[in-house]
Amino acid sequence: MDTAQRIERALTQALERAAGPECPAGLTAAVRHAVFPGGARIRPRLCLSVARACGEDQRTITDAAASSLEMLHCASLVHDDLPCFDDAAMRRGRPSVHAAFGERTAILCGDALIVYAFQTLAFGVQSTPQRLGPLLTILGASAGMPYGIVAGQAWESEANIPLGLYQRAKTGALFAAATAAGAASAGHDPEPWRRVGDLIGEAYQVADDLKDVYGIAEELGKPIGRDAVLGRPNAVAQLGFAGAVDHLKRLLGEAQASIPACPGADDLHAELAAQAARLMPRPREHAAA
Amino acid sequence: MDTAQRIERALTQALERAAGPECPAGLTAAVRHAVFPGGARIRPRLCLSVARACGEDQRTITDAAASSLEMLHCASLVHDDLPCFDDAAMRRGRPSVHAAFGERTAILCGDALIVYAFQTLAFGVQSTPQRLGPLLTILGASAGMPYGIVAGQAWESEANIPLGLYQRAKTGALFAAATAAGAASAGHDPEPWRRVGDLIGEAYQVADDLKDVYGIAEELGKPIGRDAVLGRPNAVAQLGFAGAVDHLKRLLGEAQASIPACPGADDLHAELAAQAARLMPRPREHAAA
Repeated sequence: MDTAQRIERALTQALERAAGPECPAGLTAAVRHAVFPGGARIRPRLCLSVARACGEDQRTITDAAASSLEMLHCASLVHDDLPCFDDAAMRRGRPSVHAAFGERTAILCGDALIVYAFQTLAFGVQSTPQRLGPLLTILGASAGMPYGIVAGQAWESEANIPLGLYQRAKTGALFAAATAAGAASAGHDPEPWRRVGDLIGEAYQVADDLKDVYGIAEELGKPIGRDAVLGRPNAVAQLGFAGAVDHLKRLLGEAQASIPACPGADDLHAELAAQAARLMPRPREHAAA
Repeated sequence: MDTAQRIERALTQALERAAGPECPAGLTAAVRHAVFPGGARIRPRLCLSVARACGEDQRTITDAAASSLEMLHCASLVHDDLPCFDDAAMRRGRPSVHAAFGERTAILCGDALIVYAFQTLAFGVQSTPQRLGPLLTILGASAGMPYGIVAGQAWESEANIPLGLYQRAKTGALFAAATAAGAASAGHDPEPWRRVGDLIGEAYQVADDLKDVYGIAEELGKPIGRDAVLGRPNAVAQLGFAGAVDHLKRLLGEAQASIPACPGADDLHAELAAQAARLMPRPREHAAA
């Protein structure tokens, strides 16, 4: 079973435990719509890669941590798309959750996914209680106050937005949690792994900024140019195309250099190099620039 | 320090850990507004009472569980009050969170409180890792899918609402969690305690239904007659005043009878009797009926 299958299976099995006739059908359907089919599953992939590099010994625990990360990510997308935030009718080339199920169900879908992320951890980490606390701490911090995705989204309502804090909370926190949770799933110290995730998260942010300016709406499954419309910071607007690409390369190099000593370091380096290649703008985007 | 002070202190200390200049000021203020000043703090009180009855040995753990319950409750009130749900401009005699801080911040405030409930557990239960799993399972189930408060709220959007499931999820789940978490905080088996909480939760629901019909808006801090306006089930509408009062008495008696054997059973019986007395309609309400 490859990584992609493993992630889909873990998410499917987790959500099946919550479904059934005793759960309101609209909520069950909305949660499935929010999670399947997924995007690139970048955060759970990263979590699994780090767990393997650390000599993963309990796949159930890693699966729970990876699923939990993805649920928190999907929950944030559902709430970010709401009319009072980005008012996005489309997501991943399909109607967003509120467009398909209404605003009430979308709010509850996000709530349910946040809670279920933690229920999934509790279910998956029963065999080794001493790993639950570190994982719950990592996941909670990545989602909540003061440095998690909810806080990141809340910065958008403030008059003065500290750019570093904002981007680290809104995007970086869940990436740092992905690498930290991967290590903690395998019983390793999560702290040295945070920086790897931070840097990869920042690289993805720059790659997204490039796509928002030079991407193709049909391929992205959402409109381009939203940062300018919504007045959000964008690395291309700040650094220009070449500057943003240089910044992206530097971040990916630093991420590689930050990988702590671990049994599977070589494989992880190779995986990150492949991922880095996918993140760089393609020739067509260069031409558009 | 009495129980009320203990609860306020635990909540205050928990939220102080998340505040500070690195958290968006609007979010911090909204979360404080949602939690302070509180209502009757019924769920954390119940959790503390059961923990004491079970021979509480680690106050930090009980405090974390009690705070977590109250945060999940406050989160559900913030989201329930939103324009797309109950559209309630007032709560506890003050503007509701969205009325005071806007819809965006209210949605994020509820999200942050849900996450923070679990962060609080992780922080408070570090000393005894084997109690974290049971507590996380109890709290997660009470909030999420398929039987928790989010599912309860989601039933309101369904064409056919199974009354028992709906009320148990929307109100009962957090009461059952309060008694179960009280026991689990003290290292006791939580399962036999669920029924006590279930019955007390049902009693509070009937008492609320009575207040919704015969209460005084100024004292409740919210308008009366909302169930009829919103088409929600109400025990008085189903059973009449005398029938609802009889039902309330029976539920409270059954709750007392369900208390499992424990070191502090006598004190707990006395506490529940005092609580029962406060729940019964007062003479003025009898006169209004």
